[in-house]
Amino acid sequence: MATARKEHEFEIQFQATGRSVGKMRSEITVTRPGGGETYEMATDEGDFHGGDGTAPPPLAYFATGFTACLMTQIRAFAKRLNVPINGVEVTGHYRWIGRQTGREPYVGSPGGFSFDIDLDSDASTEDQIRLIEAAKKGCFIDQTMAVANDVGHRLKVGDDWVDV
Amino acid sequence: MATARKEHEFEIQFQATGRSVGKMRSEITVTRPGGGETYEMATDEGDFHGGDGTAPPPLAYFATGFTACLMTQIRAFAKRLNVPINGVEVTGHYRWIGRQTGREPYVGSPGGFSFDIDLDSDASTEDQIRLIEAAKKGCFIDQTMAVANDVGHRLKVGDDWVDV
Repeated sequence: MATARKEHEFEIQFQATGRSVGKMRSEITVTRPGGGETYEMATDEGDFHGGDGTAPPPLAYFATGFTACLMTQIRAFAKRLNVPINGVEVTGHYRWIGRQTGREPYVGSPGGFSFDIDLDSDASTEDQIRLIEAAKKGCFIDQTMAVANDVGHRLKVGDDWVDV
Repeated sequence: MATARKEHEFEIQFQATGRSVGKMRSEITVTRPGGGETYEMATDEGDFHGGDGTAPPPLAYFATGFTACLMTQIRAFAKRLNVPINGVEVTGHYRWIGRQTGREPYVGSPGGFSFDIDLDSDASTEDQIRLIEAAKKGCFIDQTMAVANDVGHRLKVGDDWVDV
């Protein structure tokens, strides 16, 4: 039967609206277009950026999201691929470089990202590797990081929006 | 004097260690190599992935981190570029596509990312655009998304680590 090989596509969307509060604090409301849960999160900066340290910095949220995304995929696909795991521990390493000339605003760049994955599983090494390979492909952030993305930025000018 | 144009480089590092708890919950500890603050965060999944919804999903953390990263840079560089702002509101739009064949694990891909930026400022439009352009270049996540990254994955096998 050909039906089992049928292809389908689905979409996942999030919207995050942030408002500046105090020196460097951002209060973010995350929603999903079409309804569903709403999440309230806050970030702040430490001394380096003149913040008050009232919440974790933005990059800590990024690191949490990316690490957990991979962990979700590993567990979701463990069932589908029939590779039983009792638990998983993942350590993500995140590195960035900033370059600055004189007192000009610095320019950021990625400095390398990697994951160390420890599965609590009696499955063969081959099966565990097969699971990680599937999880990499399924993890939305992993796949996003692997390609160059054209991120759009629009500035509100009066009642219009101008591409920057 | 040539000293004002001197170039220098700095590094930013985060480490995020996640442990699986329950069905789909991940408990993440974020540290900075070399010391500093430690942040505890948790993620979970909803029905789609068989989670219990005890915490926001990983992609909500990603969206919060990225949106707030840009907001930090806008405020940090407003001072350096002498473009006074009273506040900033940013809405980030995040979209991903999943493609699945039959019952196989799906494959994720980016579906587009964009920001709508509203500055509360009396500065000229030219100055506001100049500020956004600098913030894009300074935002570590923006710059990371703009290029293809080779993300490493290692699986623990006995006492060794195997690249996957």
